[in-house]
Amino acid sequence: MKTKNKKNKKKNTLWGGRFKAGLDKDVLRFSSSINVDYKLAEFDLTYSLAHVTMLAKCKIISASQAKVIKQGLKGLLKLVKAGKYKTNPDSEDIHTDIQNKLRVKIGPAADKLNTARSRNDQVSLSTRMYSKDKLMNISKSLTKLQQALIKLARANDWVVMPGFTHLQHAQPVLWSHYLLAFVEMFQRDKERLADAFKRVDVMPAGSGALAGTSLPIDRDMLAKELGFAKISANSIDAVSDRDFVIEIISSLSVIAMHLSRMSEDFIIMSTAEFGFIDIDQAFCTGSSLMPQKKNPDVLELIRGGSSRVYGDLISILVTMKALPLSYNRDMQWDKEGLFKSLDFIEEVLLLMTRLVKGIKVDNFSLNQALADEFLMATDLAEYLVKKGVAFRQAHKIVGELIMFCSGADKDITELSLKELKSFSVYFDKNILKMIDPQVSVKNKISYGSTGPLQVKKQLKKWAGKLQGVKKYA
Amino acid sequence: MKTKNKKNKKKNTLWGGRFKAGLDKDVLRFSSSINVDYKLAEFDLTYSLAHVTMLAKCKIISASQAKVIKQGLKGLLKLVKAGKYKTNPDSEDIHTDIQNKLRVKIGPAADKLNTARSRNDQVSLSTRMYSKDKLMNISKSLTKLQQALIKLARANDWVVMPGFTHLQHAQPVLWSHYLLAFVEMFQRDKERLADAFKRVDVMPAGSGALAGTSLPIDRDMLAKELGFAKISANSIDAVSDRDFVIEIISSLSVIAMHLSRMSEDFIIMSTAEFGFIDIDQAFCTGSSLMPQKKNPDVLELIRGGSSRVYGDLISILVTMKALPLSYNRDMQWDKEGLFKSLDFIEEVLLLMTRLVKGIKVDNFSLNQALADEFLMATDLAEYLVKKGVAFRQAHKIVGELIMFCSGADKDITELSLKELKSFSVYFDKNILKMIDPQVSVKNKISYGSTGPLQVKKQLKKWAGKLQGVKKYA
Amino acid sequence: MKTKNKKNKKKNTLWGGRFKAGLDKDVLRFSSSINVDYKLAEFDLTYSLAHVTMLAKCKIISASQAKVIKQGLKGLLKLVKAGKYKTNPDSEDIHTDIQNKLRVKIGPAADKLNTARSRNDQVSLSTRMYSKDKLMNISKSLTKLQQALIKLARANDWVVMPGFTHLQHAQPVLWSHYLLAFVEMFQRDKERLADAFKRVDVMPAGSGALAGTSLPIDRDMLAKELGFAKISANSIDAVSDRDFVIEIISSLSVIAMHLSRMSEDFIIMSTAEFGFIDIDQAFCTGSSLMPQKKNPDVLELIRGGSSRVYGDLISILVTMKALPLSYNRDMQWDKEGLFKSLDFIEEVLLLMTRLVKGIKVDNFSLNQALADEFLMATDLAEYLVKKGVAFRQAHKIVGELIMFCSGADKDITELSLKELKSFSVYFDKNILKMIDPQVSVKNKISYGSTGPLQVKKQLKKWAGKLQGVKKYA
Amino acid sequence: MKTKNKKNKKKNTLWGGRFKAGLDKDVLRFSSSINVDYKLAEFDLTYSLAHVTMLAKCKIISASQAKVIKQGLKGLLKLVKAGKYKTNPDSEDIHTDIQNKLRVKIGPAADKLNTARSRNDQVSLSTRMYSKDKLMNISKSLTKLQQALIKLARANDWVVMPGFTHLQHAQPVLWSHYLLAFVEMFQRDKERLADAFKRVDVMPAGSGALAGTSLPIDRDMLAKELGFAKISANSIDAVSDRDFVIEIISSLSVIAMHLSRMSEDFIIMSTAEFGFIDIDQAFCTGSSLMPQKKNPDVLELIRGGSSRVYGDLISILVTMKALPLSYNRDMQWDKEGLFKSLDFIEEVLLLMTRLVKGIKVDNFSLNQALADEFLMATDLAEYLVKKGVAFRQAHKIVGELIMFCSGADKDITELSLKELKSFSVYFDKNILKMIDPQVSVKNKISYGSTGPLQVKKQLKKWAGKLQGVKKYA
Repeated sequence: MKTKNKKNKKKNTLWGGRFKAGLDKDVLRFSSSINVDYKLAEFDLTYSLAHVTMLAKCKIISASQAKVIKQGLKGLLKLVKAGKYKTNPDSEDIHTDIQNKLRVKIGPAADKLNTARSRNDQVSLSTRMYSKDKLMNISKSLTKLQQALIKLARANDWVVMPGFTHLQHAQPVLWSHYLLAFVEMFQRDKERLADAFKRVDVMPAGSGALAGTSLPIDRDMLAKELGFAKISANSIDAVSDRDFVIEIISSLSVIAMHLSRMSEDFIIMSTAEFGFIDIDQAFCTGSSLMPQKKNPDVLELIRGGSSRVYGDLISILVTMKALPLSYNRDMQWDKEGLFKSLDFIEEVLLLMTRLVKGIKVDNFSLNQALADEFLMATDLAEYLVKKGVAFRQAHKIVGELIMFCSGADKDITELSLKELKSFSVYFDKNILKMIDPQVSVKNKISYGSTGPLQVKKQLKKWAGKLQGVKKYA
Repeated sequence: MKTKNKKNKKKNTLWGGRFKAGLDKDVLRFSSSINVDYKLAEFDLTYSLAHVTMLAKCKIISASQAKVIKQGLKGLLKLVKAGKYKTNPDSEDIHTDIQNKLRVKIGPAADKLNTARSRNDQVSLSTRMYSKDKLMNISKSLTKLQQALIKLARANDWVVMPGFTHLQHAQPVLWSHYLLAFVEMFQRDKERLADAFKRVDVMPAGSGALAGTSLPIDRDMLAKELGFAKISANSIDAVSDRDFVIEIISSLSVIAMHLSRMSEDFIIMSTAEFGFIDIDQAFCTGSSLMPQKKNPDVLELIRGGSSRVYGDLISILVTMKALPLSYNRDMQWDKEGLFKSLDFIEEVLLLMTRLVKGIKVDNFSLNQALADEFLMATDLAEYLVKKGVAFRQAHKIVGELIMFCSGADKDITELSLKELKSFSVYFDKNILKMIDPQVSVKNKISYGSTGPLQVKKQLKKWAGKLQGVKKYA
Repeated sequence: MKTKNKKNKKKNTLWGGRFKAGLDKDVLRFSSSINVDYKLAEFDLTYSLAHVTMLAKCKIISASQAKVIKQGLKGLLKLVKAGKYKTNPDSEDIHTDIQNKLRVKIGPAADKLNTARSRNDQVSLSTRMYSKDKLMNISKSLTKLQQALIKLARANDWVVMPGFTHLQHAQPVLWSHYLLAFVEMFQRDKERLADAFKRVDVMPAGSGALAGTSLPIDRDMLAKELGFAKISANSIDAVSDRDFVIEIISSLSVIAMHLSRMSEDFIIMSTAEFGFIDIDQAFCTGSSLMPQKKNPDVLELIRGGSSRVYGDLISILVTMKALPLSYNRDMQWDKEGLFKSLDFIEEVLLLMTRLVKGIKVDNFSLNQALADEFLMATDLAEYLVKKGVAFRQAHKIVGELIMFCSGADKDITELSLKELKSFSVYFDKNILKMIDPQVSVKNKISYGSTGPLQVKKQLKKWAGKLQGVKKYA
Repeated sequence: MKTKNKKNKKKNTLWGGRFKAGLDKDVLRFSSSINVDYKLAEFDLTYSLAHVTMLAKCKIISASQAKVIKQGLKGLLKLVKAGKYKTNPDSEDIHTDIQNKLRVKIGPAADKLNTARSRNDQVSLSTRMYSKDKLMNISKSLTKLQQALIKLARANDWVVMPGFTHLQHAQPVLWSHYLLAFVEMFQRDKERLADAFKRVDVMPAGSGALAGTSLPIDRDMLAKELGFAKISANSIDAVSDRDFVIEIISSLSVIAMHLSRMSEDFIIMSTAEFGFIDIDQAFCTGSSLMPQKKNPDVLELIRGGSSRVYGDLISILVTMKALPLSYNRDMQWDKEGLFKSLDFIEEVLLLMTRLVKGIKVDNFSLNQALADEFLMATDLAEYLVKKGVAFRQAHKIVGELIMFCSGADKDITELSLKELKSFSVYFDKNILKMIDPQVSVKNKISYGSTGPLQVKKQLKKWAGKLQGVKKYA
């Protein structure tokens, strides 16, 4: 007779009736996710509170049972918020851990908590709640970084620097215009996060393991209670889907990439050879061997750390590739990378914002670099165009002029008028005034250009845009 | 006197005045992108036509010059559309190739074309135009695939199948419900593409090499002419930015992932052992050695091909990592992966749509699989919950029942009432009626569940939603 | 006068003289690696012991100083080995932490420890020592997994199963032959690890920060003491190089891939539909909702976990891409992924070995699957070839026979002799004997084939090869 | 009666007997690999020639049949070598294409060619042959690049440059020592290729589709004929295995990474601000807009192109992840990435070798950079160590000295002796002689350091090692 298995105490899991023996200890350690998903505790408890309210409203459990369970949950939530909740490292996951603690606290009433839900929808839900919270933080941090950049731009208004393409001198640009390029990037990042947010903000609870339930639950009520904009419309998809994880890490990858480019620029600009900027020493470290060192370690760690987010992106994509529907345990690995990347970007944005605030521009070095007259070559070509020379001809004429100067090791301003005219009859004394980075910048008039009026317009636009920033804008 | 370099004919490049010698032949072959970017010809020409119109409107070139150039461009565009445009493999890129052909056609007038623009903004612009076109196609193809899935769902309405989690029997679900899970996925894909589209739909032209221009161009006019929703607001960012490439390939990666999951499912379902479905032999191939083979090659190539898109995603992310502002030649590699991934997804969606249309469901095999009574275990647990048993207890009771049946190698329906009651007093004859996959499915009532009423509602929703589909919805 | 900075106590770093203020707290937390590199403690101490011995031998420090320092180091090493060493979470890294603890323990004598070395070479050295240790463990674990596979093969010798290509029935093969395919894979993995080991086994210490040292150290002595096969020959390369990290993770990726394929096969083989094998329930888990579930979670976690190693591989490759020489702080991220991947593969190999030991083959299901007569189609074709028919013709004849049977829903053995002969005159009664999976397997005679004699030979070879396995073989 | 299918002409495939209709046209285009694997033509033909010889020796076909087939094959091989072989774009792959052309040429005799082989082993074999060839080329190219580096080192012997860590000035090093760091890297690359080669050099032919064959073939003979070192020992593994593709691309990834670091360094060193080196203009290009530009495009394309190899690596790893044994069509995607990466690295090594040959060192800029006296800080610390100061104290003393100089904006050599002594009593006039990059370098004596004697030793070693280079060394 089937009296076997009576003493089968499997406290660390939410299942076990059909199993003869408890889970192997090594297997438990390997398969447990509690060292990662403990971060979900607050969200899991918040969800459970709403779930119980709903179960009672729908008469699936009694009001008095609900009251008892909610009291227990609230106690645990208080512990979590106070940082006093201690997880049991042997628990299979945080959801089990909470369930077990609740059982200890309120007894058999706890056994009603898991009615009409499965870990498949529960995990997805709490991960979504966690992600929404983080995305809002990151979006705010991006705004703060933009504000720091705007401030740094304003503080050095009308400082000119050599603009680079191919890391070679290209044309003079305003330092503020250069910084605004990053403001644009981070704005796109916020838009991407806001778009991703829409697809995170979908409530999967009530999908059960994959089929839904025969119990009369109210999913709309749950969504409203938990602040979700939508509820999922297909239970199989709801438990199979990790698109939102991919989309988040993918958006974070672009942020990481932008930060790596900014880091690279600042690292190069703060070399002994460039010397364009000075990084506050609070963001630098020394060497254990070389006493003189002041290394831009924070920038290097940010630049290099982009690889962590990239790695997490490829990981989740690989995890999901060719997985049969619906839920598979492979998907448990989703949280490790998601949490790591969210934490990294969150931390790095704060550091970069402070680092930007501490940047000092070195006008002396900038001016040395701007002494390169070839920076104004394009201005000369456009000058010829205005005189009626076809652009391709103008380009060629100035190119030959440059080659001549290079060969003779002369500056353009050292040439005689006769020499200049030998390249083009349109050249006259006026062009010498153009060999000036300030003038070069001032002449730019197209929308979005580095011309001071254009840059002013942009700075003003951003000041307004970033001021009253709500969630995502 | 600087008569040198007179015969410096560098026909294959748009520059050269300052160079003593032409580009090394090996270097040209290595650095040329024409074998990839020839696909941009139509868009580059369309842009140039608008550019010339604008230059004339802005009095930067004369109306008559504009007319000559436009005639030349139109002639080339006609060739491209007729598939008769032959690129010169020695050209540095398609933009140079077009410029050179125009020069041959209309003479020196062609030299005015490149006024107030640089390849940096030109390449970005034409890549964006190309991408917009492709994204719209792909979005339409996703709709067609959804429609095929809906049709297949309706054709087999109320066919029940075993639902899987962990590739193990979970609960009975409707075949149509299962297919709708994919419809949801592809809907999210379309939303992601539409969101990405917003950031592709920004016009960079007029940003010059990085600084804008001193010539009085009209960027708004250009954007309107070319059908762009916005114009870029920072010239340095405009030429440095490849976010849109990343975001596109990232969205395509998720589509590829979805298709790989669908392929995996169909491959497994069409094995000799499952036999749930039959793939039309037009989508299968044989073996050079084994005469009996009918292999689901198309599904395998789609599944495996997801790796191509993943590879392209990581490539573009790596390319952009830590690149200093603004443009660097590294970025030339962006198009290879972008075009490959766009083409792949475009082609694969068409094939998958046709493949779905040809799928035949094998009811015999499905029914064999549904004979597994344990599929109804959750229904028994929910039955007990309705009788007042706490869920965790109900779960345990049914688990023990399952273990007993497994051990005794018996079906649940083979047990005597007495045996059943030994597990729970709430068990009675009625539960035997529940051991029926049709009943199991019927009992599901939650929103988004596999219950027939719910599925009907969804099918109706989709029929409406997919009918009048515009660009992105 | 330069009395400033006197109380500048920067206990958590190995530098600081030139800095006015201590490192910012957030920066320290961000840049500290101690939560990862604490694993290097034992190796760092072992190295320091050898380093001090060498410094004394070379008269760089006195014998008595060396004695004091070594005593201190030994005390710390004892703590580490006993698991009682407590790191200070505020230390910059484990090397600093050890240095600081030593200072507390033995006073100013500790200040001599870092003579003639830099963290740049120190970190590389201890990471290499750690890696060597782990690689040897993993190699041994691979051998154990091979042994388990051989045992499982022998236990079921001459069990026949359907061999698959494209997950479709291909030809009958021996179960043992199938398992030996994995033994081959893991052998290649060991060879790859052994090859990688050669390049890990190079001692970088003595390279200083990047330039070497003016102090008369003896690097050969150090290498001998620490058991390294070679010493690095270029100090710049020595501190810039992380090839060995890439090569290790790359080799681990292939192991992970092999394990993912094995997992996939076992997951599919243990579905209700295939039922070829039974996974011990100690390696399965249940469902929080569905009481009947026995899911192959361990296999799924192994399959999905391959994505972690892939992610780590791409991370380290991205980290190193385009880094200027020599050391950059970006490289600090190397250890996170290296350690994670090493730990994962180490753990997973142990679990898979135990899981393999518990696999039970289900002959009933295998025989059902083998009833598919088309599995013998290739045998029929080869029969015709032996009769003189050209292979391509033979292939076509059998293909037509198969099509006929499929259409008529008949087995080959149900056809009359007349019907058979209508396909080829060479067909006679004898071929009916060939429609037998046992016979099919027995007829295979080529080296490495699934023929029993060939498989026996391989089993014997492996038994010998795996017996006296040393480090790598 | 089974007269159906008589006119089933499926010329483009090696199968078809069991199929009612030919392959769908779109499916054929999608699934055909001929646009990629046409590169295998030579190797496929070479293999077929050896295969036929073997079949005849083993009496599986007659000597006269063999003669006819071989004549046909030789004719095709001749065409291939002359570049006159035209593939049919509708062929499924190159193997089918060759088979079909042979049929046209020699008639029904061609039908015997595919005896005792399958495309599964055939594809693997020809891919391995192709790879062996390419690997040997790449290895030779690496040697040539090393030689160019050695030559450039010798040409500038005893030029000193600032060594960098964190892209900040670290210590003076020899330019030749710096270049030798890359020589070391490329040596490891060659070793990795040689190790990978061992696992490519295994002959799979004779494994059939997955089970081996019942025909009396001689695999050893085939291996000897084709120059393979080993034959595969398990037929299932032989057709399932793509480890060698992964291992090759993985090794190429490290080469690409090394080249990206070299490119980054050279790009930075050739900026206007550094100016350490000049890149020959044959490896630079100009701008379509800015006439003065001379951009290091080749270096940028090499740097950025590393992302292509990384992408290919992740692609093949993803393709193989969780594939069930044995062959699956997913694996067809292996060649695309393999060929692309092999071609890229092959081409890039040639270009980089030529580029290195054209590098000119700018001593003026180097000397300007070396004027930074803080580069000698470590020398001062080591000086104090020799005087008996504990290293950590010495480090602190020099750090304070540096801070003082920074604050006072003075060079060390500008300090009075009194000032110097206020930092340490051990400082005396002698240390001023140490503030000299030449002296700093000369003082380095440890093995592998930048000391001239050490570097001389290394240069000599390499000269010998690279001279008589055979295949892999």
